[in-house]
Amino acid sequence: MRVAVDAMGGDKAPHEIVKGSVQAAQQFPDKEIVLVGDEKALQHELNAYGTTPKNITIYHASQVVGMDDPATYSIRQKTNSSITHSVKLVANGEASAIVSAGHTGATVAAATLHLKTLKGVRRPGIAITLPTQHGICLIIDVGANIACKPIHLFQYGVMAAVFGKYIYGIKNPRIGLLNIGEESAKGNDLVKETFTLLSNSHLNFVGNVEGREIFDNKADAVVCEGFVGNVMLKFAEGLAINLLSTIKAEAMKSFWSKLGLGLCKPAMEKLRAKMDFSEYGGAPLLGVNGVCIIGHGRSDSKAIQNAIKLALQLSKNEVNEHIISEVEKTNALTADIA
Amino acid sequence: MRVAVDAMGGDKAPHEIVKGSVQAAQQFPDKEIVLVGDEKALQHELNAYGTTPKNITIYHASQVVGMDDPATYSIRQKTNSSITHSVKLVANGEASAIVSAGHTGATVAAATLHLKTLKGVRRPGIAITLPTQHGICLIIDVGANIACKPIHLFQYGVMAAVFGKYIYGIKNPRIGLLNIGEESAKGNDLVKETFTLLSNSHLNFVGNVEGREIFDNKADAVVCEGFVGNVMLKFAEGLAINLLSTIKAEAMKSFWSKLGLGLCKPAMEKLRAKMDFSEYGGAPLLGVNGVCIIGHGRSDSKAIQNAIKLALQLSKNEVNEHIISEVEKTNALTADIA
Repeated sequence: MRVAVDAMGGDKAPHEIVKGSVQAAQQFPDKEIVLVGDEKALQHELNAYGTTPKNITIYHASQVVGMDDPATYSIRQKTNSSITHSVKLVANGEASAIVSAGHTGATVAAATLHLKTLKGVRRPGIAITLPTQHGICLIIDVGANIACKPIHLFQYGVMAAVFGKYIYGIKNPRIGLLNIGEESAKGNDLVKETFTLLSNSHLNFVGNVEGREIFDNKADAVVCEGFVGNVMLKFAEGLAINLLSTIKAEAMKSFWSKLGLGLCKPAMEKLRAKMDFSEYGGAPLLGVNGVCIIGHGRSDSKAIQNAIKLALQLSKNEVNEHIISEVEKTNALTADIA
Repeated sequence: MRVAVDAMGGDKAPHEIVKGSVQAAQQFPDKEIVLVGDEKALQHELNAYGTTPKNITIYHASQVVGMDDPATYSIRQKTNSSITHSVKLVANGEASAIVSAGHTGATVAAATLHLKTLKGVRRPGIAITLPTQHGICLIIDVGANIACKPIHLFQYGVMAAVFGKYIYGIKNPRIGLLNIGEESAKGNDLVKETFTLLSNSHLNFVGNVEGREIFDNKADAVVCEGFVGNVMLKFAEGLAINLLSTIKAEAMKSFWSKLGLGLCKPAMEKLRAKMDFSEYGGAPLLGVNGVCIIGHGRSDSKAIQNAIKLALQLSKNEVNEHIISEVEKTNALTADIA
């Protein structure tokens, strides 16, 4: 099987993207990797590795979607972008999966447009893996769909259960609904209607989950609308950065606490490794007809290598096929829903 | 002026609530404090202080709203609760302000029902003060209103500007709109329509603010719908707890890092003080006809004392009067909006 890697996407592209792809090519010698992007630039990067692994090829794409380009503009105007060409390789059957650390909105738009959704799936959603003290918790959606209906949220639960089962080996994933309280009557119309759908389904639904409970091992996956998931994650990222830099700034003010901070460094490093998104490679856009992994804009070679690994796992474990059959099981429940 | 304190509300009620009220009564000898709740229990608490300050009285309320009671149930069934009686004291003109660290939903419901909204204000919103490295950032709404329209979000901006100006002394507060990207075309219909309203108003609108930018001193206040604000804050709280306890757990594993953690303690304490919500006392429910301060459920005496202080400031600085006149300025802009 072949993975199309958007080699121009991300803050550290193309250098770290090519490096991670070369590492993945060496790790998975029986799989093929297609680097999509500016041929000259990519060849130049590859030359640094001496002999290019045989399972790496370049596919030329002359344009790059900038991080400030509006998603819809990039799809309509930049038809030769590395994102669009990567997606088209999958749409044409020349590759099975895309990995991109570039413009998330453009990747979602291109994947939705060219790959379409899986049979029965209404809207794709991005599922991120959140490391916690107890293991992991999946959050879906974190920004693919900001005009969310109950049926979309419900299907996110179905897809997250498949992802949790076939990628993380969780037998019967506990699905939670992000809400502002635990009682079933809580929340806005969107979550109340979703609550009913989830309750009546075959899923292992554990009810409403409050923001802080995501870390409490109450659910293996939590569903929420893309707008909410997106601002929530970014706020938490901002808080974590603010918190750690404030600790550092305070500690630097005295000799003893500065020394203390130095002694704590190994513990902090272990924490960093635990919380490190690059370990998880990227977040799948679940629900499109093809495997699509969205990497963090800051992805380095390790994150790209892990994203490629995740793409291979999704293909090998037939996550999309399982999603189709699990969604089909809910047809009777959702038949009348617009 | 008199402040009605819901002495039965909060995890540490009535002990810490009474203690904080006594401290406030001593700090503000020319103001009156009414402790609302079970007379016997409150008298027992007061006896511990020897002579009760002359400016503290008790107002008997036989019921308490439990943290698990649904808000609407508590309003309809527990008409003798400490929350309802506190609010009614303000509604009847016997007090100017309420402070409650009890059930937030019940307090919001009681205040909205009995006090009504200020002239021109469509929906009240809870404004919390977030401490950042650069100072503070207000977030409104964090859970009062989960069926939010553009006009509500817009008026949150107007009210936050008044609060920022008359309580924090910020000359012309920068108002941001919480969104998933910076460009004006980003987001769902709610935020897009709010963007237009804010842009056309007299406010110092600085545009869209992403979740992580809340910490970057881009705006003095950020508006969002209550559902989003609530889950975002609680998620961040969970993350912060998870992060700090993971650091601690990792550091405890070795002698040197354990020592290091001990040396860092003063710096961590300073951080805790900086991030300490009790410094800010509580969050006003802006937009109701009366001063209503909502305390954190974990409020201790210091938090209650500061919440009473904040209530007095809001009254003294005529925040509600300024809200009415600022909202009036936007009448032409919002006249046709449902």
